[in-house]
Parts: sequence; structure tokens; C-alpha cells
Amino acid sequence: MVGRKIRIGLLGLGTVGTGVATLLADQPAFALRRIVVRDRNKPREIDLSSYELTEDPMTIAVDPEIDVIVEVAGGIDPVYEVVKTAVQRGKHIVTANKELIARHGSELFALAQANNVAIFFEAAVGGGIPLISTLQRGLQANRIERVAGILNGTTNYILTKMEIEGLSFDAALKEAQDAGYAEADPSDDIEGRDVVYKIAILSSLAFQAPVNVEAIYRQGIGGVTDLDIRLAADFGYRIKMIGLAERRADGAIDVRVHPMLVPEHHPLAGVEGVNNAIFISGSAVGEVMLSGPGAGRLPTASAIVGDLINLASALQLPDFAAYFHPPIRSEVVPVSPIDDTISSYYIRLETLDTPGVIGNLGHAFGAHGVSLHSVTQKGVRADGAATIVLLTHRVRERNLQSALADIIAQPATLQIGLVLRSLE
Amino acid sequence: MVGRKIRIGLLGLGTVGTGVATLLADQPAFALRRIVVRDRNKPREIDLSSYELTEDPMTIAVDPEIDVIVEVAGGIDPVYEVVKTAVQRGKHIVTANKELIARHGSELFALAQANNVAIFFEAAVGGGIPLISTLQRGLQANRIERVAGILNGTTNYILTKMEIEGLSFDAALKEAQDAGYAEADPSDDIEGRDVVYKIAILSSLAFQAPVNVEAIYRQGIGGVTDLDIRLAADFGYRIKMIGLAERRADGAIDVRVHPMLVPEHHPLAGVEGVNNAIFISGSAVGEVMLSGPGAGRLPTASAIVGDLINLASALQLPDFAAYFHPPIRSEVVPVSPIDDTISSYYIRLETLDTPGVIGNLGHAFGAHGVSLHSVTQKGVRADGAATIVLLTHRVRERNLQSALADIIAQPATLQIGLVLRSLE
Repeated sequence: MVGRKIRIGLLGLGTVGTGVATLLADQPAFALRRIVVRDRNKPREIDLSSYELTEDPMTIAVDPEIDVIVEVAGGIDPVYEVVKTAVQRGKHIVTANKELIARHGSELFALAQANNVAIFFEAAVGGGIPLISTLQRGLQANRIERVAGILNGTTNYILTKMEIEGLSFDAALKEAQDAGYAEADPSDDIEGRDVVYKIAILSSLAFQAPVNVEAIYRQGIGGVTDLDIRLAADFGYRIKMIGLAERRADGAIDVRVHPMLVPEHHPLAGVEGVNNAIFISGSAVGEVMLSGPGAGRLPTASAIVGDLINLASALQLPDFAAYFHPPIRSEVVPVSPIDDTISSYYIRLETLDTPGVIGNLGHAFGAHGVSLHSVTQKGVRADGAATIVLLTHRVRERNLQSALADIIAQPATLQIGLVLRSLE
Repeated sequence: MVGRKIRIGLLGLGTVGTGVATLLADQPAFALRRIVVRDRNKPREIDLSSYELTEDPMTIAVDPEIDVIVEVAGGIDPVYEVVKTAVQRGKHIVTANKELIARHGSELFALAQANNVAIFFEAAVGGGIPLISTLQRGLQANRIERVAGILNGTTNYILTKMEIEGLSFDAALKEAQDAGYAEADPSDDIEGRDVVYKIAILSSLAFQAPVNVEAIYRQGIGGVTDLDIRLAADFGYRIKMIGLAERRADGAIDVRVHPMLVPEHHPLAGVEGVNNAIFISGSAVGEVMLSGPGAGRLPTASAIVGDLINLASALQLPDFAAYFHPPIRSEVVPVSPIDDTISSYYIRLETLDTPGVIGNLGHAFGAHGVSLHSVTQKGVRADGAATIVLLTHRVRERNLQSALADIIAQPATLQIGLVLRSLE
């Protein structure tokens, strides 16, 4: 293939696809041969007159004059079938599709290896930040112990706005939507599904084995109030939406996605707005952080075109599929159940302001082995309800949940407002 | 070479060399065949009974049973001759030697290419942080506009201590020495020579052309006082030792090393202690930062062993020398003279507290086209001297220096205490 242009079929022409087409115009080694669009009559920002457009995605999978599929359509259907067909026909894949890689990565990597083609996916996590290549090739001499990241720009934007401007969740969400940082239906971001796919991919690279995405514990940021953000700040923390994957001594992997209390001097605490960051703990290197724009047309397109350039170099290799696929075992590694997590906790309770309330809380926690670091009552409302905020020492989640079950059964308890784990 | 162990000659067994030997014990693909030490009778922390020791560095360059030289001795003599001889005999090089690469990189890369061997140097800048591989392969689709980094852990430790604990420079330096973060003779760090080599390497990768290290402007941190750090904080800045390389419109490269005012919300402002960080501005990706431990036995050894693992993979390539050497032109690119730098400035002056002093200062700056952002007088000492701190708007360095020459000639001026440029 050396000496002639690498011919690309582009699947998807939304924000990122348009960015890819723009950047490819400056790359003489590549020819954009065919573009799959949903509606070929839709007006576009860029001149498409020199490209062949099609609405049938399978045409690029079977076109013998295409070498590489660049997939920026997202979702599983029809992408999964298109990618599988393309791989079976000897085409390489460059994709930004986090769900595809998280759900079907190990199967597709094996299929690619059998067909001597490569699958690149730098753009699937962290936009233009070179996270994937760093985990695959930059820290080879390390046994990775943990990856923890701010992997969703929408939720980080909302939490930053709530913190810096004191906005409510709803007002911050509306600002994110007005600024184009949140979808009209923001639930995949707010509820953490987006981060689940991303941390599943990072976990599979860090620990060389896929995880079942359905087994990953997930808590969204919808329950976080501006009061929680202020109280956390009083205790020296910021609240960040974190995806975490950590190797446990028993061979299981602790993978979870939820808002966390992050100590204010931790490097992740300073990552603001729509930026993403990943914090990697390695056996030799210690702690390394990468940060930057986690989404957006050109950053994401830059990751895709970077993959294409690396692919073009790799095409010189006699056995590049073996070279480029990290040894991800095909057996899924078990995800540690959330009950086994050990953390310190932030708990906000609404209770009646009656004598003995705090004593009863203390007894309930103590009975389940939960040791308290601090208990603070934050004012009493006109209706007689009080907000009580507790910080615990490190304890197993199972014990905490048992204590909370007892507490919710106490007559003075109105509701458990929010429970957050800490990043330690 | 596939199928048998890759045989290593290790040049240097100090802190990093010992770390390399330790990590290699876990890497079955490599055999550490021979170690060059300065004194074979010196007691060592690790058991060397299974290695061949020698005090003659040239023996590993000519040993036909060595495939790769790992060079962690540092300096130019005798390393430069050893590396050249080894390359001419077909050996690959993995080095942590910033001075060697900064001064002789383009010559050595050309020699390596002619001999079909590779030179890896991830450990030369930023310890275990994968900076080099990110600039070489992670941001391929970008035109790099600027790299700016905290590249020296010793000076960052000293400035952090001065800021957080209010220590004087001398007290902070002593703490750094006591903690093992500064040498008994710390001048290479304090005066910025260490950073000059590192930014020269990063500049050559970012802009694909070497620079002459002697042409790089350099100002050390010895003149920064705890007063400057407090005053900078009042204005919303932190003082950081920065190496910067930036593409200019006329084709020259602006490369310089000096303490800078960094806005407190800039990601580099939050990098504390012995950590290093690099902030990269790319045409497509926007701004990406990598941070982590910039030195230390295991972080640096992790970069070296990572290079060895990548080299082992690359040995499959039919023409890997071409694959691994970025197209660094051999012609040196000119470094823009410091007089042409445009920046805003922090200036601390000691003057007599006489009437009209501030008016005279304002006239002198105005006469040279230097526009002032703020002028603050900070107390008067018993001897009648006053400290005046000025912040300027953006101006060309040449104009600022002319104004300062006029000011130093004014009878009320006792001395120009410190001039700092800002990171913008």
C-alpha cells in the first residue's frame, strides 16, 4: 500500500465527521473516497461536491476501493454490523465510538487480528487528549494500579458552574444546554452512562482484560445540590464526576462511576469547565495526569486523524495487527460489587429537629462499624426539618448501607438527601 | 532478533541506573549483559553478582554481543564518543541524557538512520511523563504552536515552598537539599541550564528542527524573593520556572527559560512540588497538559524500560529507523533574540522615597512606549528606600530595556530588584 493514497470511507458527517473531513483536506497521504450520511440532501457547512455521498452504510464496508473505515456515527446499530463486515473484508477501522469499543471491543480486536487489520480508537475517550496511546504504549514498564478520570465535559461544566457561580443544578444544566455543551436530552451525560463506556475502555487497557459494562456501578449527578458543593468546599473538597478503575488484591477490578469528593489539592480538583483529565497511578512512574479538551469538533477530529497517520506508518509493519493490539485477554474480568467498596463517605440527611437525633444517628452508624469523622447540623427550616451532614472514616459500603437502612427507619429521619464517596 | 533476548549494555549505575537494573529483572525479553561503573569496588544497593562490571565505557560500544546501550551516565564526555561508536557498530541507544540530545541530537539521529538503528530518549525530559512520545506520535494531526513547561522539579519545589510556607529562597533551597531534591551544587537547576536542554529537545520535536542551545535566553530563579511571590499572588499570579518554545510568524522560534508570572487559573499554576508538567497548544487539539513526577529513580527508569519495550516491538519493522525518527531537519532553526520578545512585565524597583519618583518612572516608561497596568508602592524602609512594583501591558522587550536603562540612570533609583515576564 506504500506509495499510493490510503482510501477512506467516512461513516457519519455530524460535528466530528465534518471536522475529520476538514483536517483530511491538509493530509495528502489520504483520500476521502466515500461518506455515509443520514440525509444526502441536508445542507452542509463544507463543500461536499468532490465526495461520493451514500445513505447506505454497508456500501463502504464492502467497497473494494476503501482501505480504512473512519466511524464517527456512534451507537451500536448499524455500526457494529458495518464494522464487522469491513474487518472481515480486510479494512482497518478508526473509530470514536466508545459504546462500540466498550461493549464489543475484545470481540472486534480478535476479529481484526484474525484478518490482519487494526482498530484504532484514540478518539473514543478524552477527545484529543492522547489517553489511549499513553495507556497502550507510553507506560509499558508499569503495572497500572488505578485510573481515575474526569471523562465527561458536560457534567464537569455543570459542577464547575454550580461551584464557581453558586448556580442550582437546573440553572447550570440550562447554561450548559444554551452553550451547546449539553444535549436537549442530557441523560446519558448526567446519569453517567457516557462515563461508564469510557472507564470500561480505560480499564480494559490498564488491566488487559475487558469488563462487562452492565456490571459497572453508576450514580449520576442529578442529586448533587449547590448546598452539597458549598458544604464539601467547607470540608476541603470539590465534587467531581469521576470514572474509576482500580486493581484489587483478589484479582477483581473495582470499576465505578459516580460523583466523588476530591480533595482540593488533588490535581483532578483543578480541572474546570468542559475539560477532561485522567489520573494514572503506575507501579514505577507514580502518578501522571493528562488533561485537555475532552470533546469538540477539532480536538476529536485531531485524535482520529492522528490515528490515521499512525495507521499509515504501521502499514509498513509485516505483522502490525499483533504489534498494535495490546494483549487484552478475551475472558471478562469480574467487576467488584459496589457493596465491597471501601471509602470514606459524605452523607446529607434531612431529619426532624428533635432532641436525641444526633445521638440516634451516632448509635446507628456505630452499630454497623461505621466510624464518624464529623457531624454538622446545618440550620433548621421553618417546618422544623434540619439538614445534617456527616463525614465518615473509611468503611466498607455494605456496612454503610446497613447503617443507612436503620437510619431511614428512624421516626425522625425525613430522607437521605445524598451519599457521596471520596477519592482517596 | 525475534525469539532471543535483547542484550543490554548499561552505561552508568547511579540512581537511575539502579532503577533500570531493578525494573529489568521483571522483563524476561531483556538480558542485562554488561554494566559500566565508575568504581567496581564501590558497595551497591543491589546484588550485581550476576552482571559483568567494567570501568571502561568503550567496551560496551564495541561488544558484538550487545544489542542496545542504555545510557544513564549523563554529560558529554565520554558519552558522546561511546554513543557514536555504538551507533556505528549497529547498536540501538536508549538514553536519559538531555544534554547529549539537545547538543548532538540531530547529528546522532542522522548517524542512527544511516546505520539503521534507533535512538530513544523519553527519559531525557519529564522523567516518567510520556512527553516525548506524545509530541512524536500522539498529536500527529496538529501543527504545534507552543510548548510551555515546568521542567525542573528542584526549582518548582523551591518556588512552591516559598509560596506555601513563606520561606526565603535560601531556606527553601536548604530544604530542597535536605530532602534530596537539590544537589550540593544546585547551579544547573537554579540557573536554568537543565531546563535549557529540555526545552531545546521539546522545541526540536514540536517544530521538527533543532535549535542552538547557546542561543536560548536563560534567567535563573536566584533573584526571586518571597516578597515577589507574595506581590505576584496579590495580582493573581504564581511565579513558576518555565521553559517555553513558540512558533513565530517570521519562521523563527521563540525559545526561552526564565521564571514567569503564571495566571493563578492557568493549569500550570497548580503544579506543585517536584512535579513537572508540559502545556501543549496544537492547531486542532487546543490545549493539552501532561503532568507527573519529573525525576526520581523509578519514574525515570520506567521511561527507559518503556523505551526498551517499544524498541523491542519496533525491531519487527523492516525500516524502523525511518519510522521512529521524526523528520527533524538538520539545519538549525534560528532562535528569536530576547529583545524581540513581546510580553507583559513585573518590575520590582528599589528607589529613594522622594517626591516625584513615581512621576519620573511613568515618564521614562512612557518615553519608550511602555504602557503601565499598575504601579504600587510597598512601604518605606528606615533608610528611606521604597519598594515600587509595576505591571506593564504587553510591550516589546527592547522598549522595556531602554526604559529600564533610563530609570537606572535616575538619581532616585537605588536598584532594579527583579524583572519577570508573564505567561500569556
